[in-house]
Amino acid sequence: MGGKLYGVGVGPGDPELLTLKALRILRSVPVLAWPAPEKGPSLARDIIAEYLPGTQREIAIRMPLLSAHFPADDVYDKAAIEIKDALDAGEDVAVICEGDPFFYGSFMYLFGRLANDRSIEVVPGVSSLTACAAALGSPLSARNDVLSVIPGPLDAGIMSMRLAEADAAAIIKVGRHISKIRGVLASLGLSDNARYIERATMAEQRIVNLADVGDGDAPYFSMVLVHKRAEAWK
Amino acid sequence: MGGKLYGVGVGPGDPELLTLKALRILRSVPVLAWPAPEKGPSLARDIIAEYLPGTQREIAIRMPLLSAHFPADDVYDKAAIEIKDALDAGEDVAVICEGDPFFYGSFMYLFGRLANDRSIEVVPGVSSLTACAAALGSPLSARNDVLSVIPGPLDAGIMSMRLAEADAAAIIKVGRHISKIRGVLASLGLSDNARYIERATMAEQRIVNLADVGDGDAPYFSMVLVHKRAEAWK
Repeated sequence: MGGKLYGVGVGPGDPELLTLKALRILRSVPVLAWPAPEKGPSLARDIIAEYLPGTQREIAIRMPLLSAHFPADDVYDKAAIEIKDALDAGEDVAVICEGDPFFYGSFMYLFGRLANDRSIEVVPGVSSLTACAAALGSPLSARNDVLSVIPGPLDAGIMSMRLAEADAAAIIKVGRHISKIRGVLASLGLSDNARYIERATMAEQRIVNLADVGDGDAPYFSMVLVHKRAEAWK
Repeated sequence: MGGKLYGVGVGPGDPELLTLKALRILRSVPVLAWPAPEKGPSLARDIIAEYLPGTQREIAIRMPLLSAHFPADDVYDKAAIEIKDALDAGEDVAVICEGDPFFYGSFMYLFGRLANDRSIEVVPGVSSLTACAAALGSPLSARNDVLSVIPGPLDAGIMSMRLAEADAAAIIKVGRHISKIRGVLASLGLSDNARYIERATMAEQRIVNLADVGDGDAPYFSMVLVHKRAEAWK
């Protein structure tokens, strides 16, 4: 009998948006694994730091900032082996993920390496999608709206088509794509229907007019919500 | 100084998927409001029943099953007045919502009636979208996937177009539309890429092959997840 593997969503940033289930698991497993940049703290770990008993073994999954390949296969390969070793030793392991593990999360790459021969329980978390809408006071979608989640790195042509087809949209991973995104929205006449937010529910949360975001100023954790009806609930 | 109004997402069904923030608010407010059918229990209230102190005043928002108009304006008008009265009396009020308040929730109709002259704090919850993916062990979207949420009541032509355009999709509110949905997926060659689940994370959760769902058997709380790559994480 090996240990059990959990993929645990820890929510968008506010530690109080952790679920009771995530809290129970994070406090009880002997091994915790978390994603982090090559140097510096893990955002996912920071979210839950106050709840940890301080007795767990921790596996850092550190991703080089400038990776020649994407995803960084060797990093995930190594982490998967470390996690398997812990499971084989009978230890339960929780891999923590910002937001939700299956919503654009890097947990996918571990899942792909481990799901074939390990049973994995995924604990859903509050995603940035609904957290951004809540923080903006702006409903995402109602009734029979089609809501599309559109990654910012897509090229302007594709982004424009997907926006044209949806009733509502969330443009995620805005970052350095802010200028392109503004241009696409303007060309569709949707500038007044778009709202910008960064680091929703974190201490550093910032809401500004889309027009006022500097071209190099949007972080990776930023989102533009668009609704074609000015008021989504009408 | 009036009371404070909260819209609180209570998650998809498992009481343990409540957030710590929702728990704190639900235990502390003097007035709780919840949606329910014309007769019988409220699903949202059932989810949190075990956590309630038992001392709160409760406002039932009961929706006639066969309403001549949609949304049932008079029901929401009346509930909005009751809630305003409580706020004017200085009482904090929490309106609870299955899943997340701003993701296809009926909370929108109260929000539309109250947001103009009351400050409302929305507490995001785990949505059915990520809960279904977790329960199915099936990642929703990764990298630069466009993920579309498509309501089941849409007609087959629109549904087909939206599915054709997205990399991944969640068809929600399946219910009596199951047969149409199966037909659309088959016509797009996507039958083998679709997975069906109902009542995710509830005690009655059921996962069956899409082909095996009887034409009248899918409840409102059911979803079909589609991903064009057989394995979303690759």
